[in-house]
Amino acid sequence: MKNTFGNVVTVTLFGESHGPAIGAVVDGLPGGIRIDEKYIAARLTQRRPSGRISTARREPDSYEILSGVFNGYTTGTPLCIIIRNEDIRSKDYEDISRLARPSHADLTAMYRYGGFEDYRGGGHFSGRITAALVAAGAMVMKALEDKGIYIGTHIKSCGGITDREIADETDLRVLAETDFPVLDAEAASEMERIILDAAKDGDSVGGVLETVVLGMPEGVGEPWFDTAEGMLAHAIFSVPAVKGVEFGAGFGITRMRGSQANDCLRTDGKKIYTETNNSGGINGGITNGMPIVFRTAIKPTPSIFKEQRTVDIKKGENALLRLKGRHDPAVVHRAGVVINAVTALTLADLLAARYGADWLKTGENK
Amino acid sequence: MKNTFGNVVTVTLFGESHGPAIGAVVDGLPGGIRIDEKYIAARLTQRRPSGRISTARREPDSYEILSGVFNGYTTGTPLCIIIRNEDIRSKDYEDISRLARPSHADLTAMYRYGGFEDYRGGGHFSGRITAALVAAGAMVMKALEDKGIYIGTHIKSCGGITDREIADETDLRVLAETDFPVLDAEAASEMERIILDAAKDGDSVGGVLETVVLGMPEGVGEPWFDTAEGMLAHAIFSVPAVKGVEFGAGFGITRMRGSQANDCLRTDGKKIYTETNNSGGINGGITNGMPIVFRTAIKPTPSIFKEQRTVDIKKGENALLRLKGRHDPAVVHRAGVVINAVTALTLADLLAARYGADWLKTGENK
Amino acid sequence: MKNTFGNVVTVTLFGESHGPAIGAVVDGLPGGIRIDEKYIAARLTQRRPSGRISTARREPDSYEILSGVFNGYTTGTPLCIIIRNEDIRSKDYEDISRLARPSHADLTAMYRYGGFEDYRGGGHFSGRITAALVAAGAMVMKALEDKGIYIGTHIKSCGGITDREIADETDLRVLAETDFPVLDAEAASEMERIILDAAKDGDSVGGVLETVVLGMPEGVGEPWFDTAEGMLAHAIFSVPAVKGVEFGAGFGITRMRGSQANDCLRTDGKKIYTETNNSGGINGGITNGMPIVFRTAIKPTPSIFKEQRTVDIKKGENALLRLKGRHDPAVVHRAGVVINAVTALTLADLLAARYGADWLKTGENK
Amino acid sequence: MKNTFGNVVTVTLFGESHGPAIGAVVDGLPGGIRIDEKYIAARLTQRRPSGRISTARREPDSYEILSGVFNGYTTGTPLCIIIRNEDIRSKDYEDISRLARPSHADLTAMYRYGGFEDYRGGGHFSGRITAALVAAGAMVMKALEDKGIYIGTHIKSCGGITDREIADETDLRVLAETDFPVLDAEAASEMERIILDAAKDGDSVGGVLETVVLGMPEGVGEPWFDTAEGMLAHAIFSVPAVKGVEFGAGFGITRMRGSQANDCLRTDGKKIYTETNNSGGINGGITNGMPIVFRTAIKPTPSIFKEQRTVDIKKGENALLRLKGRHDPAVVHRAGVVINAVTALTLADLLAARYGADWLKTGENK
Repeated sequence: MKNTFGNVVTVTLFGESHGPAIGAVVDGLPGGIRIDEKYIAARLTQRRPSGRISTARREPDSYEILSGVFNGYTTGTPLCIIIRNEDIRSKDYEDISRLARPSHADLTAMYRYGGFEDYRGGGHFSGRITAALVAAGAMVMKALEDKGIYIGTHIKSCGGITDREIADETDLRVLAETDFPVLDAEAASEMERIILDAAKDGDSVGGVLETVVLGMPEGVGEPWFDTAEGMLAHAIFSVPAVKGVEFGAGFGITRMRGSQANDCLRTDGKKIYTETNNSGGINGGITNGMPIVFRTAIKPTPSIFKEQRTVDIKKGENALLRLKGRHDPAVVHRAGVVINAVTALTLADLLAARYGADWLKTGENK
Repeated sequence: MKNTFGNVVTVTLFGESHGPAIGAVVDGLPGGIRIDEKYIAARLTQRRPSGRISTARREPDSYEILSGVFNGYTTGTPLCIIIRNEDIRSKDYEDISRLARPSHADLTAMYRYGGFEDYRGGGHFSGRITAALVAAGAMVMKALEDKGIYIGTHIKSCGGITDREIADETDLRVLAETDFPVLDAEAASEMERIILDAAKDGDSVGGVLETVVLGMPEGVGEPWFDTAEGMLAHAIFSVPAVKGVEFGAGFGITRMRGSQANDCLRTDGKKIYTETNNSGGINGGITNGMPIVFRTAIKPTPSIFKEQRTVDIKKGENALLRLKGRHDPAVVHRAGVVINAVTALTLADLLAARYGADWLKTGENK
Repeated sequence: MKNTFGNVVTVTLFGESHGPAIGAVVDGLPGGIRIDEKYIAARLTQRRPSGRISTARREPDSYEILSGVFNGYTTGTPLCIIIRNEDIRSKDYEDISRLARPSHADLTAMYRYGGFEDYRGGGHFSGRITAALVAAGAMVMKALEDKGIYIGTHIKSCGGITDREIADETDLRVLAETDFPVLDAEAASEMERIILDAAKDGDSVGGVLETVVLGMPEGVGEPWFDTAEGMLAHAIFSVPAVKGVEFGAGFGITRMRGSQANDCLRTDGKKIYTETNNSGGINGGITNGMPIVFRTAIKPTPSIFKEQRTVDIKKGENALLRLKGRHDPAVVHRAGVVINAVTALTLADLLAARYGADWLKTGENK
Repeated sequence: MKNTFGNVVTVTLFGESHGPAIGAVVDGLPGGIRIDEKYIAARLTQRRPSGRISTARREPDSYEILSGVFNGYTTGTPLCIIIRNEDIRSKDYEDISRLARPSHADLTAMYRYGGFEDYRGGGHFSGRITAALVAAGAMVMKALEDKGIYIGTHIKSCGGITDREIADETDLRVLAETDFPVLDAEAASEMERIILDAAKDGDSVGGVLETVVLGMPEGVGEPWFDTAEGMLAHAIFSVPAVKGVEFGAGFGITRMRGSQANDCLRTDGKKIYTETNNSGGINGGITNGMPIVFRTAIKPTPSIFKEQRTVDIKKGENALLRLKGRHDPAVVHRAGVVINAVTALTLADLLAARYGADWLKTGENK
């Protein structure tokens, strides 16, 4: 429903880039999920612009939990977490405020909200809002890890450079510690060079993210509409800059024959597994116990410093736009942690829908 | 929520392949949408297996509207439409009933429903259920057409063969009349040949569908979660065999720089449009008035006649499976009409959420 | 959401009084609930007009389950149950069709649906639709009984005559067998006399229903909005003719002091109980393990044979109305089984939300 | 869904009595609702304990809008409003913390959340949370007033004393200005005396609230489940201490015959109205254009200073409880403003569902 997602474990996002605060309400969690504050802070650090290739905006991103946590555990009642906006320089945006930035939401926001939208810095459409999503997702992601479910994302390709495959849980741990999530060191430095080259040109690049979930229980998802793929895709398309989502072999499967595409089944007497995983861990909308694998297309950051043709949406006239201010030449390396967050929230929702919210509990009843 | 989709205009699917009937309930429509019975029948005919390259199952697909229509118009109360299952040959499935078909939902259905699922012919997971979806979608699609919104889908590629672009509304009309939705006649016959070749080998093929929506009003969709892309993708991943969805330039956009990817804006004084449409008609989750364009990856039909390794899920033992019965060597040509149906239902929901359900009304108040 | 109720176990109603069929879709049930066809038929018989004091319309109410049941158990996929309308005499209604019946929905239906509503016999607003609700509720009510949760309703008062209290489960069993749910035989015959007296005058009477739920587990419901009371009241106000709902001591509690109203707590070392039950089994929106008790105000049937002032809503002129056709002088005795049905559906939803849908399962996994 | 209410305009509540803050997220509002800060503050003042008959807890209740408002108007994106908890004296509660207070939610909270609940001062169950509800409701209530829809509530009866009827909009304005909402001055002072008498005895009293809505458009609500009565009752039963809700003639209608109970219809050629309003402005779940009238049973405050039998829920032993701290001898006079708030939120949701959210807009598009 609108700015809320989920059936059982729900997340509601609020906030504008240049308003007092951004935040999220997570509802439907059971009492008894341990809250690991360092883990949340680490995820926020990963999302935060840093290093050579990110925007100069510096937000400490210190969050505050307003409700729903008591003595270090979730209470089971709605959890509100907020992050104050501090480093706000609205002036940067003022002179261009009514020149719609191409491939941004400036124009569509005006269509949708009739001119009442907070247009400063993209308002509610800003990538800034994803900090709240990451904070909310981190709490749930930690609970899933405590249950043996691990989520990780790497840059599969960027500027023609390809990373190696995610092999196992160790790789996921490595990705959880880095702010440029690429496993192959050489590929990583190549990609960074490509991003910096674009930055020098006042331009930007995109890339493909690949997410792997290990340890996901089988039997989760619904046959129609609330399929595991449909729920994940629904959430993922909220992440700014996403233009495509594919599961398992994805678009590549359209070039296979059925005999290549089908995942043959085997059992070792205890567990049933598939020989290949072209299905990406999901059949008929329901998890099959194999790793969930999907890829996400991240477009080049639309904020570039080259001159662009656009329209002054206040005056209704053609105009030229040359952006100033701080902008990333790429967000693909920062988007992974956001994808992880929405994946965690979606899987927690699906698990709670299947097994009841108490399944997510990590502490003992008192 | 589960087997229901939509916030304002909702559709609920029910039925099993070999049960008494399949059907759909559509709720949230206003009173006063004209019901065009011939239009519904034509859509069902397009979905129905036919010709040389489709399964031998013959269903007349004669539907019955049980409620919600009076004197040729919707009443505004829930509309239930059912299609009886008639040509049922359950025996075909009996001897293989507990050998899970690879890349089908047989195994996951058992995980999800604990063995109580109706496994005959795929039960509730069967592509057969899409007939109900097509019937429900057809009613809504006609209402959108009466409002100037046209939806059409062609096979963009199949077996390495590519169709030409959809140019305009005329092309959409052509696609609405054919049961093999390819615009270029030569490409069409090449694709058919490739499908028949696979059939000869007891194998199957997939393809990429491309959908175009013309005339969609701007300002529809939400910034987070219920984005136009997220809602469409959510619904589309319900369609059996879909493994990927991409909007506008899709995964291809990851290989562009921002300066190529951005859709510059222009106005002719009346309307604002973009010079390119890499965004696929949606920015920040909200429609921008340009055509909505997306592509869907359809996997090769998992039912093939080659021997496959699998597991007997009753006995928990490895086994070999050789399918009998009737199966399509491809569903890509039949899936387009299903994609159109879920697109129509999703757009109607988004429009009703934005402008109120009465916006969809095509008749005059009495 | 509109004509759907519930968060986890949902029910959607469809159908019009004089259309082809009425029905319900129940979704969110687990696979493995045993379906007791005789039990469903018995509930439908209780709702059906019969005996001296009910309308002459005779519907066999033979239902058909179209989906979601296989080999006598729910499959876990959406269950659609329909009842064909057979004994339709639309002519009775035709000449008065545009004279709005006072305290009926004729006028508001026109306001809501702009004249497109099926007005014959009240259309979608007809009490007839409750047959579908009773059928849907019966399946769930039987599952609750198999879990030790018993629901029963009696006429607490009618025409100034009061029934004795429901004492225990035995009383609930008695109420389950009768078509005039009053425990005290003398009170019953007095009430019947009062109803028949009203009928002789072409008039009608109402009454107060009291519902008791025994065996309800504690800890079910939410603190805000989806409180056990709020969910029950929401569903119950759908039942035609209901004008009030009160829990425990209800409106009477407003005349007590806190020291009388409070339910003191005691324990026998195993279980905690309250000495009184003025709370009606619910505190802070959550069940406390005591019986759930609530009362419902049922208004006199608005269809009476006396002349009434009204408006011709077609012509917009004042008019006089004298109803013909078949109408009950009271529905209070038939409404109890409908209240039981919505209570069962609501409690099943709350239980599934709390413990997962599988909690409702009555069969063994296969 | 759980702690969120509404289909189109939704409100989500969060916070605990002794946590950092309480608050609400309102989503689904259009851009362009003027925010009147003085109006919000006035409603919070009415809810706040004050005068001789209320708890000694003094909260300035200064709220902060974190998002969704820009330049004095709603933006159309989620609006988060918070109120910091400042005057917290947790010690008052500590020694009794595990003695469940009779007819409070202490025991059920433990059942529901397994001991992880924040039990201090009632936590998320505290009446304190209603301050957030009042703030959220005030914004919407002002928008409704700007559209000509007025909501007001008075104490209909308390301790056997009855107020006179609400006659018109002037009465609603009087009630909007007072912190003891009774129209008849003599009745007011009698009721105050009764409350103070109970306070002297360490006891408490309840009462019946009556709410009237003037100017509500016709045609709003749904025939089944999301009826206007069902939606209002659902929301109202969230308000702590409510044990019953009745519309129009309510339980009294059960003692009328149909010929007395029916609201005959008349027209003056322009508008259709009813001669009486026993239906309380709603027929078949849909508003008929007459005033909406309902009454709510408010139980005596369960916090009393007399000794009560209870259970130590930590030790599982019988115990005696004598409350200390600050408690109201009645909340009935403060509950009216909360009822108004949930009424405003519910009616705004129903109106937006019927006519689109833009219907609520009070400012001009820019």
